[in-house]
Formats: sequence, C-alpha cells, structure tokens
Amino acid sequence: MENYRIYLTEEEIPTHYYNLRADMKVKPAPLVNPGTLKPMTAEELEGVFCKELVQQELDDDTRYFEIPEGIRDYYKIYRPSPLVRAFNLEKALGTPAKIYFKFEGNNTSGSHKLNSAAAQAYYAKQQGLKGITTETGAGQWGTALSMAAAHFGLDCIVYMVKGSYEQKPFRREVMRTYGASVTPSPSDTTQIGRKILEQFPGTTGSLGCAISEAVEAAVTREGYRYVLGSVLNQVLLHQSVIGLEAHKAFEKIGVKPDIIVGCTGGGSNLGGLIAPFMGEKLRGEADYRFVAVEPASCPSLTRGKYMYDFCDTGNVCPLAKMYTLGNGFIPSPIHAGGLRFHGMSTIISELYHQGMMEARAYEQTEVFQAAEIFAKAEGILPAPESGHAIKGAIDIALECKESGEEKVILLGLSGTGYFDLMAYQQYNDGTMTDYIPSDEDLVKAFAFIPPQPEDL
Amino acid sequence: MENYRIYLTEEEIPTHYYNLRADMKVKPAPLVNPGTLKPMTAEELEGVFCKELVQQELDDDTRYFEIPEGIRDYYKIYRPSPLVRAFNLEKALGTPAKIYFKFEGNNTSGSHKLNSAAAQAYYAKQQGLKGITTETGAGQWGTALSMAAAHFGLDCIVYMVKGSYEQKPFRREVMRTYGASVTPSPSDTTQIGRKILEQFPGTTGSLGCAISEAVEAAVTREGYRYVLGSVLNQVLLHQSVIGLEAHKAFEKIGVKPDIIVGCTGGGSNLGGLIAPFMGEKLRGEADYRFVAVEPASCPSLTRGKYMYDFCDTGNVCPLAKMYTLGNGFIPSPIHAGGLRFHGMSTIISELYHQGMMEARAYEQTEVFQAAEIFAKAEGILPAPESGHAIKGAIDIALECKESGEEKVILLGLSGTGYFDLMAYQQYNDGTMTDYIPSDEDLVKAFAFIPPQPEDL
Repeated sequence: MENYRIYLTEEEIPTHYYNLRADMKVKPAPLVNPGTLKPMTAEELEGVFCKELVQQELDDDTRYFEIPEGIRDYYKIYRPSPLVRAFNLEKALGTPAKIYFKFEGNNTSGSHKLNSAAAQAYYAKQQGLKGITTETGAGQWGTALSMAAAHFGLDCIVYMVKGSYEQKPFRREVMRTYGASVTPSPSDTTQIGRKILEQFPGTTGSLGCAISEAVEAAVTREGYRYVLGSVLNQVLLHQSVIGLEAHKAFEKIGVKPDIIVGCTGGGSNLGGLIAPFMGEKLRGEADYRFVAVEPASCPSLTRGKYMYDFCDTGNVCPLAKMYTLGNGFIPSPIHAGGLRFHGMSTIISELYHQGMMEARAYEQTEVFQAAEIFAKAEGILPAPESGHAIKGAIDIALECKESGEEKVILLGLSGTGYFDLMAYQQYNDGTMTDYIPSDEDLVKAFAFIPPQPEDL
Repeated sequence: MENYRIYLTEEEIPTHYYNLRADMKVKPAPLVNPGTLKPMTAEELEGVFCKELVQQELDDDTRYFEIPEGIRDYYKIYRPSPLVRAFNLEKALGTPAKIYFKFEGNNTSGSHKLNSAAAQAYYAKQQGLKGITTETGAGQWGTALSMAAAHFGLDCIVYMVKGSYEQKPFRREVMRTYGASVTPSPSDTTQIGRKILEQFPGTTGSLGCAISEAVEAAVTREGYRYVLGSVLNQVLLHQSVIGLEAHKAFEKIGVKPDIIVGCTGGGSNLGGLIAPFMGEKLRGEADYRFVAVEPASCPSLTRGKYMYDFCDTGNVCPLAKMYTLGNGFIPSPIHAGGLRFHGMSTIISELYHQGMMEARAYEQTEVFQAAEIFAKAEGILPAPESGHAIKGAIDIALECKESGEEKVILLGLSGTGYFDLMAYQQYNDGTMTDYIPSDEDLVKAFAFIPPQPEDL
C-alpha cells in the first residue's frame, strides 16, 4: 500500500521561487497610485517596502527567483512540509476519489504564512534595515513575522486589532515570546491612531486602521519598512514553495492530481498551492481543475466586481485591480474564521477572470462540520480558513462517489485551528450562525469602489 | 552537511513495543492492594482496566510486545516523529555539543500522550467495550484520548479538573470537537463527586478527585473501563516507540548519543524516550548518561522518598513503590507547567534507585527562559514540561562549552506550548515567580505516606 505521508528530502526543498505571472499571457493589472492614477513606480514603493521585494513585486517576466541560502536554511527547520494521503477521510466518506493534503501547519506560527515571513525578513536584513512593521488581525501573520524577525535579528513592530489583542491573547503572547513589540490598534503611538481614538474613543479597531498605523510606523522611523502577509505578488511568489513541493512529491509517487482545492481570503495560500500546476496549464502542458473556496459571508470571487479598488479600508494603500466587494465591506462579526478580506490577489483575480479556475462559497457552519469530519479522520484540527478548502474537497469527493470517478484531489491544508477554539466552541455548543450579505448590502459596499483609472 | 531533520520511513515505525522491565535484574516493585497489602492480581485490576492492558501491566519478562496493525495504522497519521538536529540552538549557545531533539508535539493533541492513548483505545475496542473514562488536568491526556477514542469508535468520558475546565477552555473544546463528553470535576454525576461538592461547595477540584470520579464512572457503567495516561508500566511500554524511533534514526546517520535528557512528572515521556538506550545499558552493551529533569516545585526524584504510596490523593488507587513526596503533596498553584504529580513511575523510580540515571530540578522562570531560547532558535514553542528537558540540555551543552567536549545530547521534546500561553504571558510580563517547598513542607507531606507493606 501507498504511504500515508510522502516526504521530500531536505535537498528537495525548492531552490527557486516560481513566478506564475511569467506564464500568464494577460498579466495581472499593475498597482496604481491613487493620487496620480498611474502605475506605482519602484521608487514610490521603495519608501514603504524593501527594495528586493519591490523588484519581485513588479517583475512579471522572470520565471524563477533563486531562494537565497539564508531563507533555505530557515525553511529547513520546518520544511519540506508533508503531502499526506487522507486514507481515513476517504474511508469515512466512502469515496473512490483519492484525497491528498499538503499540510502547512507544522510550525509554531501554525500556518503557511511563515514561508513569506521568512523571505521578507531575510531581504529586510540584507538591506541593512533595523526593523519591520506590520498589522495583524487574529494573529497568524504577526506570529509568523515575529518568528522570522527573531531568527534574522530584526526589530518587529506589530499593530494588532484591539479587539483581537484583548480577546485573543494567545497569539499575542507567542509574538511577545519571539520578542516582537505588539501594540493594540488604534494606539496613541501614531498620528492616525490618535486621530481615530479621538473620533471613536471606544473602538475595538479594524484591520484597515492597523494597516495605516503600521505603514506610518515604518515611514516615520529610520531603517524600518512595512511588510504584508497576503494579496501582493511577492507573497504569492514566496508561497509557491507550497505548490512546488507538492508537485515534486506527486512526481515521486507517480501520481497526478486532477483537482486542486484551496481556500482563499487574500489569495496567498491558494496562489502558492496552485502555482506550478497553473503554470503547466497556462503553458498547455497539462490540465487541472482548480477550485477556490471562499466564505459566503465575504464572497469576493463569487459575488464581487473585477475593478480597481483600495487594498485597505483606510485608503492609504495603492489601488489594485481585483475582485472586490468594495473597500468599505466589513464581513459580519459573527464570521469566526479568517478570509475576511474585501478583495483578492490580483493574480488570482486575473486567472479567475480568464476562466482558469472555479470558485465556490460556503457558510461557516457547514465549514466547521467539514472541519470536524476531517479532524476526526485525519487527527489534525484544521484552521477555519483551511476548513473551507476541506468542505470544497469533501463535496467534490462526494460528487465522485455519486459518479464513481476515481479522481485525485489535492487539498491545501493551510494551517491548524489551535488558536480558533472559541469558534469551535460556538460550533460545539450549536450557537454558531451563518450570515450571507444581501444584494442590498453588496450594492452599498460597491459604492466604496473609487473612480477607475483609464486605460488600465 | 548533515540534515536538520532525520525522518524514518513509514515502514520503520516500530513493529513491537519494548518492555524495559525485561532487562531489569531488580524489577520494579508490584502494585499493592491497599486493603490486603498484597500485590494486585490480574483479576482485581481487570475490574478497572482493560484485560490486555492488565497483562502488559503485570508482565515483567516479555521483552517485546507486537504492536497490532490497528495501532500501527493510527500511528501512521502522525508518526514517525522527527529527530531533529538543533543546529540553530547549538549556534545560539556557541557549544561544541551536538544537540538532537525528538519531537512528539506534531499532532493535534500536542504531545506524546497520543502514543499510549491510541494503544489503550485500541485494546478497549478489541475487548468489545462501549467506552472509556479518564481524568485530565490541563488536558493533554484528555485531548489525546478523545482523538484516539473517536478513531476507534469508543465513547469517551473525561472528568476535567473544574478550575482547568473553566479557565482553560481551549483543550476542552478540542476534546468536544472529537466527540468526548467533558464534565467538570467534582460533578454531581458520581457519588464521590456529590460528596465532595457537599463538603466543599466552592471547590475548583483536583486531579485526585477527578481520578476518583473517572474510576467510579467506569466501574458503575456496563462495558466501560478506566484508562490512565502516565505512571503505569503499560503506558511506559507504549511510549517506548519514542525511544525506538530515536534509536533507529541515530543508527541511520551513524551517530550515538552520549547523554539523554528528558522531563519527568509521572514518567511516561522519559520512560519511553530512554527505553531502548537504557536496555542496552542494562544488558551491558552500551553506556549512556541519563538525566531526568523535574520541577523544583514538585521534586519527587531529587527530594522524595522511595516508598509505597497511593498513586492518587483520593486514596482509591493501588499503592505503588516509587519516589514520592506523599500523596497529600499539592504543588504550589503558582507552578504553571505540568509535571505536578507527587510520585513517579515505578520503573523510573527503581532505575533511579539503582543509580542508572541522574536527576536535576529546575525552577520555573529558568525553565521558561530556556524555552524562549529554544523557541527563537528552533521555531517550536515548547510545552512548559518540555521546557524542563530543554533547560537540562542547555545546561549540559554549556558545560560542554566550558570543557570543550563534543558530546552528543538527545533531548526529549515531549510537546508544544500552544495551550500554555497564560504561563508564557506571566513570563513575558515578568510576573512569574518561583516556589520551592521548604523542608518543613516536605515533612508535612511525607506524613501522608501510608504504612508500608511488609516483605515487598
């Protein structure tokens, strides 16, 4: 019988990141300066981001970027991540489909975010910077960045949405253990924070506000830059290690996936998972079915518009052309998992627009139900984000059961749910409810979409 | 350069448990019936424990027990666990010592406990039982048992110390997600629980009380048995997979450890880690230095007495000959980590008594300091229990730095600290304090040790 876990050797950790854009005939639309409505230049971006990362962000043509030894050495403490045959899940479902999952939660940050955090911290250090700033909501990205910053010897300043800072103290303490300074946002440490506190003294904060504070903290400090954990091209580039490893592991066992399923909020996990497979499809070398799964409460792909919009609710970031619900869209607070971003990576958006992938949206109770089935069968408690991909994969596997098809499904298991247990408690107590925005809600949110740049 | 992680293949997961007692010339003293003061018989034990497990408990002679296929298949979803070369920790310490750690936290229960939970649930199912009962404090064992019970299709009833149930809801929710029924103890579901609630209406419970309730729940239900996650011979037998895998991995890379360091509360992790190495030492085939690390706040090996004592504070369990602080000893509530048991596995106790291993005791702030160093270097947030072993290993590595010796150290990393972040918060805030029992405290606790059985 085939093994449960297919491990690569350390030598088989990818030596290069794969840049999916190089194989796209129609490239994702460029980031645009909201003031001039012209594409952002490297110079403009370098005030906020690290130099090397700006190069990666803007480069649509270079197919492979070598992964520096310092990053590869760091990857060795938690990579290669396993590709696992979900024998027990297949049995529980009674499906003829073969299900594999690529598990990115086997590190203390608990998710795939560490892949890009390591790269971004490395390049910041190489540039001779003192530190990096970022924002975090529930804390997966902040945790990952704190770990990477500690390793590379950088100061790490994290603005954490105040509500999460107070109600979800566990990730905060992981960040502090790794030496990060964690500030509840809004705070009195920035101009924008003080302004918001004055206007809304009792606010529990928002991701948009935390982004604004983190950017301000970077640009007002000598030797600091701002870093971001999703959405950007550079982040998808770094996350390609997920797909590259999965691709190699499948090669090793002589199996080819038919259907690749991933969850998507900003798109970093999905984009990394599908990268080399989508590359083959774009080059006409192979065909795969790609399924993006998003929450019904924040349905940017399935119900959004493909337009230029601000990446942040505070409107301090550039405009990106993407599937968006409008930058004023705030998912219902009853939604427990992540994937709460109003927009979507421009790469994923353009691929979806080209018809290269499907999208499905699920409600959260059915997602937790799927997560529970998976946890019992495979012994891993999934993150709610990953639960979306699981729900998608289970549904497809049950469709295979109907049709009798022995399809091979690859499922991206982006992380663990150890820090999401309040949501599991709601589910266990039967008090979890669903929320789907009405058409009216969406019309209101779309009104936030700014005037569109011409000719882009 | 050598690899960071040394993985075994699935086929190299041990096929047999190794029974260390078979190689001990002086066997650990038998469990004794507190009523008759005679060794417990199989018949007496089978009222409480599963048949097959009782056989394993009492068998001092069989060297190897075959691991049934059902257990091996379950092990495949999270084993073999990696043996990791701690290159980054070595560098951070500047030591010539080579440090390896065997990491047992790569599963949703977060610790090595799952190794025995899987075995105990399997044998219970084989016996045709309906369910199993147990107690849990912080919840590592309860989580592991819930996962195993879900896999093998058994009802699982967990009595969780009420203080933990209320203050540490996360592990409780993992257990519930796996379908376990979790009851705060003391409860009104048992006679002993009702009695305690009547006497102490506001009590937050104790492990001793939870044990008594779990045992009562098992013996008063048709088709139920009680299971225990540490201390017992059977548990150390199952945990031998840790040491067997580590031994095989070292063989693969042609390295032999000089010093083996593990933390110990009841002894299950340490006993499993050292098993095959100690076997070689007992048979005179090789020599190793073994170091048991315990908390200074609960110093059973370093300050306890080697005598017969009750395993539980409720005095419903058999007597065991072990290093004990007295069954009435309750570690200070300021102690944050696990390892709070007043006694010690009879196997570990006898080996220590024979001078086959050393013991060290550390205070908790220095343990968390070591855990932080480890987390930053190796990217894994350790459980406070494992932090004790880390502190021991770091001290030995620094001794090697002094002496210039290139010793090879094997460190047992029993689990992760994801559910111990309130303790990390205390440490990060600088509010963590230490407590070492005074000689007077110990004299008071020793008074609980019952009259000793003659001739044993």
